Amino acid sequence: MMATFRKLALLAALFPGAAMAAPPADDTAWDFIAGLTSEVGQRLAGSEAEARGRAWAADKLKAMGFRNVAIEPATTRAYVRGTDAARLTVPVPQRLAVSALGFSGTTPDAGIEAEVVYFASLDALQAAPAGSLTGKIVFLDHAMRAAQDGSGYGPYGQARRAGPAVASTKGAAAIVIRSIGTDSHRNPHTGVTNWPAGVTPIPAAAMSNPDADMLVRLIGKGKALRMALTLTGRTAESLPTGNVIGDLPGRNPALPPILVGCHLDSWDLGTGALDDGAGCAIVTAAALKAQSAGPTLRTIRVLLAGAEEIGAAGGAAYAKAHPERHALAMESDSGSDRIWRVEMKFAPSNAALADKVAASLAPLGIVRGKGEVEGGADVGPVIKAQKLAVIDLTQDMTHYFDIHHTPDDTLDKIDRAALTQNVDAWAAVLGVVANAAEEIAPAD
Amino acid sequence: MMATFRKLALLAALFPGAAMAAPPADDTAWDFIAGLTSEVGQRLAGSEAEARGRAWAADKLKAMGFRNVAIEPATTRAYVRGTDAARLTVPVPQRLAVSALGFSGTTPDAGIEAEVVYFASLDALQAAPAGSLTGKIVFLDHAMRAAQDGSGYGPYGQARRAGPAVASTKGAAAIVIRSIGTDSHRNPHTGVTNWPAGVTPIPAAAMSNPDADMLVRLIGKGKALRMALTLTGRTAESLPTGNVIGDLPGRNPALPPILVGCHLDSWDLGTGALDDGAGCAIVTAAALKAQSAGPTLRTIRVLLAGAEEIGAAGGAAYAKAHPERHALAMESDSGSDRIWRVEMKFAPSNAALADKVAASLAPLGIVRGKGEVEGGADVGPVIKAQKLAVIDLTQDMTHYFDIHHTPDDTLDKIDRAALTQNVDAWAAVLGVVANAAEEIAPAD
Repeated sequence: MMATFRKLALLAALFPGAAMAAPPADDTAWDFIAGLTSEVGQRLAGSEAEARGRAWAADKLKAMGFRNVAIEPATTRAYVRGTDAARLTVPVPQRLAVSALGFSGTTPDAGIEAEVVYFASLDALQAAPAGSLTGKIVFLDHAMRAAQDGSGYGPYGQARRAGPAVASTKGAAAIVIRSIGTDSHRNPHTGVTNWPAGVTPIPAAAMSNPDADMLVRLIGKGKALRMALTLTGRTAESLPTGNVIGDLPGRNPALPPILVGCHLDSWDLGTGALDDGAGCAIVTAAALKAQSAGPTLRTIRVLLAGAEEIGAAGGAAYAKAHPERHALAMESDSGSDRIWRVEMKFAPSNAALADKVAASLAPLGIVRGKGEVEGGADVGPVIKAQKLAVIDLTQDMTHYFDIHHTPDDTLDKIDRAALTQNVDAWAAVLGVVANAAEEIAPAD
Repeated sequence: MMATFRKLALLAALFPGAAMAAPPADDTAWDFIAGLTSEVGQRLAGSEAEARGRAWAADKLKAMGFRNVAIEPATTRAYVRGTDAARLTVPVPQRLAVSALGFSGTTPDAGIEAEVVYFASLDALQAAPAGSLTGKIVFLDHAMRAAQDGSGYGPYGQARRAGPAVASTKGAAAIVIRSIGTDSHRNPHTGVTNWPAGVTPIPAAAMSNPDADMLVRLIGKGKALRMALTLTGRTAESLPTGNVIGDLPGRNPALPPILVGCHLDSWDLGTGALDDGAGCAIVTAAALKAQSAGPTLRTIRVLLAGAEEIGAAGGAAYAKAHPERHALAMESDSGSDRIWRVEMKFAPSNAALADKVAASLAPLGIVRGKGEVEGGADVGPVIKAQKLAVIDLTQDMTHYFDIHHTPDDTLDKIDRAALTQNVDAWAAVLGVVANAAEEIAPAD
C-alpha cells in the first residue's frame, strides 16, 4: 500500500493531471455497483424496477455530493418479458436454454412446434429463397469470437438485430439465434431485434452457446430437428422511463460543462452490474475524484440515462431537454475492465488540449488511437445536435461479451483492480478537460 | 504429429506398459461423450431419459467391440423435478437462480413466502435453539473453495446432505443453501439431500453463488429478508433404473476380470458430460486402448452403473448380481481433467504389481500417493463384498466443482488434451493389471 502510494506521489510530480486523479484507491465505484445491483437489481427499461433505479440513483448522487440532481421523465417503447422456454422434440428431447429478444413476436401460451432449418450465417439466411422458410423455425448460427476492442459485436450482432426480420420476410414461424456472446455457459444473451416497417414480428430468441453447439453436432450427423418454442412476452408501445442527472459545479459556471454519460437501465436477466452499473459507477466516481482537491474550472455533469438497451430514449430526451451549450461529452458503457486506448475528436484549435489528455493517460498504460470516436448511445444525440468534442476511453472488452445481456451480469464479475484503473483514467481525463480554460470548440 | 508419434515410440521402448496404452491420439472418448450428451442428453435416475441412455450405451458398447453386452434392470428411489423458482420479496424484488435438491420436500404450486434466517455454516445452523426456526426459510451459507483433490466436497457438501434435515428438526419451513460449487455463474448446483428416519422432508434448494453473494450483501447491510419459494418436485419410491455391462474378453477367461466402472445416469440440469459421461468414456476408451495390440491376459469388464446420483442403486445391484470373483476394481467419476496421482490398495503379496503400475504412470507425470483409496460409489459395493484390490487414478478436480451438478455440465467444458492424458493413464494401468499373470489377492 505504501509502495503504491509512493509511486502515485511520484506520478503526481511527473504528471499533474494524472496525479490529481490518483489518490489512494477508494471504493466509490465498487460501492455504487454493489448497492445498485443488490438494493435495486435488474432495471429493465420501462419497468417499475427501472423507476426504483432512478430513485436510488438520485438519492445516491445527492449523498455523494452532486448538485442539481433531477429525475427527468421520458417515455419509451419497451419489451415486457413473459415465459421463455424451448426444447428439441426431434430427434431427442433436450431442454434448450433460451431467452426472448427484445421486441420478439409472441407465441401462444402453449408454444409452437416446428421443423428447424439451419443457417450458418446471416448471409446464408439472406440467400434463402423467398417463401422457403414458411412455417419453419430458423436456427441462425454465427462465428463471433472475443476481441479486445469488442469489434465482433458490430458485424455478428447483426444476426440478432437483423436476422429475425430477414427470417420473417421469408415466411419463418420463428427464429432462434446462437447467442451473440463469447462464453460457453448455459446462459443466453438477450438484446433487441429490429423490425423494419412492414415486417411482421415473429417469435425470436437467443440460445446459449453450449445448446447451439449441441444442435450443430446433431445437424452435423444429418439429423432432422424439430423444436418446441414458447415466448409469451409482449411489446408495449409507451412506458415510463427517464434520466437522472447531477452536477459537480465548476468554479466558472459560465463555461459550458463537461458531460459524462452511462445508462441506468439494464437487461432483466442479470442485475446490470457490467452493463451498465459499472459505467454509471465509473463516471460518478471519476467526477468526484477529479474534484477531490477542489472544484474544477468547468462543471462536470453526469447523465445516467434511461432505456438505452431498448432504443436509447433517454439519450434522445436529454438532447431535446438540454439545448444549452456543452463543451465535450464522454460515455462509459463497455463494462469495468481496464482502459487501454484513448480516442479523441477535437476541433483543430484544441490540438494542444488533446495532447494534454493523451499525456495524462500515458502513465496508466493507455495508448492514443487514431481518432475513431464512437461517443455512445446516451451522449450520442447531444453530440450530434451540438457537434461536440468527444473522448472515448476504450475499455478492454476481451471478456465483456462473455457476460453481456446474460443472467451472469452480476457484481462478482467485476475486477476491483481493473475498475480502479478505469476510474483513475477517467479522473485523469476529467482533471484535464474540466480545467481547460480555453474554448472547447465544436469538433465538426 | 510426427514429433508426438516419435516421442510415443520412444516411450514405448522405455516403458512397455505405457507404450501399449499410447498409440497416436484417438477420438474414442470424446466421441462417446459427444454422442451421449447430444443423442441422449440428461439422464436423470429413474427417468425415461436414463432408459434411453442405457439403450444408447448398450448399442455403443457393441459397436465398439465389447462382448456379453447386457442391460441389467434394477429399481431406485428417485426424485422427479417440478418447477423450481425463488425470489426475494423483501427488502427488494430480486429473482434468485435456484434448483431443488434431490428428495426435497414439496411446496404448494403457488409456493411459500417467509422470513429468511441466515446461518454462515452448518455448525451455526446446528447450534440454533430447537423451535427457533419455526415457519422460517433458512439460508445456509458456507465457504467451499476449489482444491486439486476435490477435498472440499466432503466437509462442505454436508451443508447440502445434512443441512436440510437439521433445519427441519428445528421447525424451518424450507431451506436454501449456497450451491456446493466453486464457480461464480447464475447456475445452481443440485444434488441429493438426506432425511434420516423420522425427519420430515422440507422444501430444500441450492442457490447460485452470485445470488448467495447478493443475499449476504443485503444481510451485511442489516436488511431483513423475505423469500418466495416454489419447489413442486416429488420423490418417487421406486422407479426403473439399471446397469449396462460389457466385456473385452481376455486370453485366459478363467482368471478373475478387471472391473472398471462409471455411472451412466446424470443430474437433469446439464447433460452429464463431466458427471459422468466422461467417466464412462474414459473407462471404455481405455479398455479398448489396452487391447489395441490384442487381447489382454484377463478380461476387462466395464460397468456403466445406473442411479448413482440418487443413492447408487446400480452399484449395489451389480454387486448382488455378480458374486463371481473379480480381481480388481477401478472407477472414473471426477470429470475429465488430467490424472495427477495414483492411489493403490493391494495385498502385500502384490507389492511388485503395485510398483509396476506406478512405473507405468511415471512417464505421464503421475505421482504415487499414500494408498488412501476411495473406490467409488459404483464399484464400492463389489469392492466391499469381495475385499477387492483397488486403484484410484486421481483426476485434477480444481475446476470440477465449477460445473458439477449444474446446467453447465456440457461437452464444451471438456478439454480434449486433458481427456487424452486421462485415457492414456487408464490404458497404461489396464495394460499392467489386465496382463498380470500372478494372483491378484483380496486387499484386506
